[in-house]
Amino acid sequence: MKKINLLGATGSIGTQTLEIVREHPELFEITALSFGRNVELGRKIIQEFKPKAVSVQNNRDVEKLKLEFPDIRFYSGMEGLRAIASFSEGDVLLSAVIGSVGLLPTLDAIEAGKQIAIANKETLVTAGHLVMEAARKKGVDILPVDSEHSAVFQALNGEKRENVSKLIITASGGSFRDKTRQELKHVTVKEALNHPNWNMGNKLTIDSATMFNKGLEVIEAHWLYDMDYDDIDVVIHRESIVHSLVEYIDGSMIAQLGAPDMRIPIQYALTFPDRSSIQFSEPFSLAKIGTLHFEEVDYDRFRALKLAYNAGKIGGTMPTVLNAANEIAVAGFLNGQVDFNNIEAVVENAMNHHMQNVIQAPSLDTILQVDQETRAYVKTLL
Amino acid sequence: MKKINLLGATGSIGTQTLEIVREHPELFEITALSFGRNVELGRKIIQEFKPKAVSVQNNRDVEKLKLEFPDIRFYSGMEGLRAIASFSEGDVLLSAVIGSVGLLPTLDAIEAGKQIAIANKETLVTAGHLVMEAARKKGVDILPVDSEHSAVFQALNGEKRENVSKLIITASGGSFRDKTRQELKHVTVKEALNHPNWNMGNKLTIDSATMFNKGLEVIEAHWLYDMDYDDIDVVIHRESIVHSLVEYIDGSMIAQLGAPDMRIPIQYALTFPDRSSIQFSEPFSLAKIGTLHFEEVDYDRFRALKLAYNAGKIGGTMPTVLNAANEIAVAGFLNGQVDFNNIEAVVENAMNHHMQNVIQAPSLDTILQVDQETRAYVKTLL
Repeated sequence: MKKINLLGATGSIGTQTLEIVREHPELFEITALSFGRNVELGRKIIQEFKPKAVSVQNNRDVEKLKLEFPDIRFYSGMEGLRAIASFSEGDVLLSAVIGSVGLLPTLDAIEAGKQIAIANKETLVTAGHLVMEAARKKGVDILPVDSEHSAVFQALNGEKRENVSKLIITASGGSFRDKTRQELKHVTVKEALNHPNWNMGNKLTIDSATMFNKGLEVIEAHWLYDMDYDDIDVVIHRESIVHSLVEYIDGSMIAQLGAPDMRIPIQYALTFPDRSSIQFSEPFSLAKIGTLHFEEVDYDRFRALKLAYNAGKIGGTMPTVLNAANEIAVAGFLNGQVDFNNIEAVVENAMNHHMQNVIQAPSLDTILQVDQETRAYVKTLL
Repeated sequence: MKKINLLGATGSIGTQTLEIVREHPELFEITALSFGRNVELGRKIIQEFKPKAVSVQNNRDVEKLKLEFPDIRFYSGMEGLRAIASFSEGDVLLSAVIGSVGLLPTLDAIEAGKQIAIANKETLVTAGHLVMEAARKKGVDILPVDSEHSAVFQALNGEKRENVSKLIITASGGSFRDKTRQELKHVTVKEALNHPNWNMGNKLTIDSATMFNKGLEVIEAHWLYDMDYDDIDVVIHRESIVHSLVEYIDGSMIAQLGAPDMRIPIQYALTFPDRSSIQFSEPFSLAKIGTLHFEEVDYDRFRALKLAYNAGKIGGTMPTVLNAANEIAVAGFLNGQVDFNNIEAVVENAMNHHMQNVIQAPSLDTILQVDQETRAYVKTLL
């Protein structure tokens, strides 16, 4: 029985994690969980999964829930996220919150010796060196939940790392892949939220449309698999069937593929090195899919991806700036404060602003400070 | 240093094996080898690779070669193949002969404790239960050289066998994949030998055009990976880039892919579980390939594949009959004695003829006898 501390229970990854737990009560149990403001859904989840500890965003909601569930320990805010992540009875933290808010809880869980199943890519982008170093010291696994990183992870199974020559991350291209930059000028929030293959949260869907998501994934892959940026390629693959590939020194490539269904990578992170069954509404068939397309990335068109590679190669605090600026810019786009193309422009501006102040191998305090400074700076641009 | 006993040195797989040995003198050495009638090429190979023992098809050639290479032990015929396969100094037998002639040498090599790298699929088709049982008893690995089986083998790396739900073998469809059965009636030997993706020997290229090759591979996969025939699928994939796939119980599929270059699977069988570099004239790129197609097999069109599934499911001596009949029918087609479509008809006739006499779990003697009887019977049909 694997006991799960789940951050972000009401989100897209969170609810699919709960689906897996519901399907496999013999394998999994939710010991602690967090959610944000969706108290209505959160209440149902508590009733069904009976966690021992719960954290919500606002203290106001805690007071209400305490009366309804007198046997459960309640927390709120960042302190709550940290308590849930490292909750003593859990074996594994599944971190499915969005944004660099996941960083401190993840470090706490590592410190407490939990396995980490990580869907929260911003944590590795903003502080990959600290997270990986802490995990190494504690002998804790960092298991990817993202479909691309899970694909790489599965394609590395049973292989020697020194035989890897390249990681190839696939990218659907997002909701606007066939639009020119000119056509992107006046796209609406509604259009941007209409992803062709995956059903995800808002932040992730916008990141997918800009390709910042793919950029964050490249930086995440750099940390997870200790690969140079020059050995991480991105290829456009509009069908989202091949989830990513590993190329070996003998020219052999191993790919993980299948339906674009997040339950597969989520469950794999929880069952690794084993696997368990998943029920599908219809069987997956390559012949039914028929055709898979692969195209080179046009870095002039997808400038966000180029910015992410640049941030990664510069290193130090620059990926923190990239990530924080993007979080604020995306929120601005969703609020109608920023045009779609300006998300990139805002991030590029923040990176240029930081260029003379990059700190290599930054401490946690430095990262948190640069994160806050960048958010404050970017808000002045909106 | 891995010491190789190589059967079939002058053939397509043989010469590519020698290329690999030439590229990696620090890893591989040829200790013993066989070839058939191509003495001219065989002589060059002996000069370059300096094996300690050599077998040729005809004793006549032995006399000539003995004078030229007085320090080498020479053999001929079946006795020679058996001596080379189990030559004492070799660590591994790479069996790249064509046809069930490979069976006895392979069993000898297993008995002598050699690792087996098997490109000779007819050996497993005709006597898979005997070969696999012998290998199990001796603790010997049977490593696939065929690109499809190597792909499956690589896709199984680090995974538990009980988590496999299906093997999916890809098939290019061969030189005539776009022709109707009507159009196949008058195709020539020259047309049949023009394979779209792979450069192989004559027997294999004809088997690829009829799809008997894919049928033999399905039976081989059944033995190599202990899978039910109902859990082995074939999918048409005209580009021959995805070399085969494994589907797991969680819906995840692992594929091995890359350039259609036999050096990759040959070398992998020799370096497993490690890998080593291979030089390519140009780097492989999915974006350059652009599009991969997958189609269901039409079993009315590719009747040979259906026959092979039937033979496999009937089991016992039936796959031996399928294979022997096909070997004679293909030789008949290459000699102009049989029309292309009649290759299937001849094999089906031989299977029907044998149907009342199937022996389950046949001994080696029974297999050899059924093999000979089938060959004799099929010759009366030509």
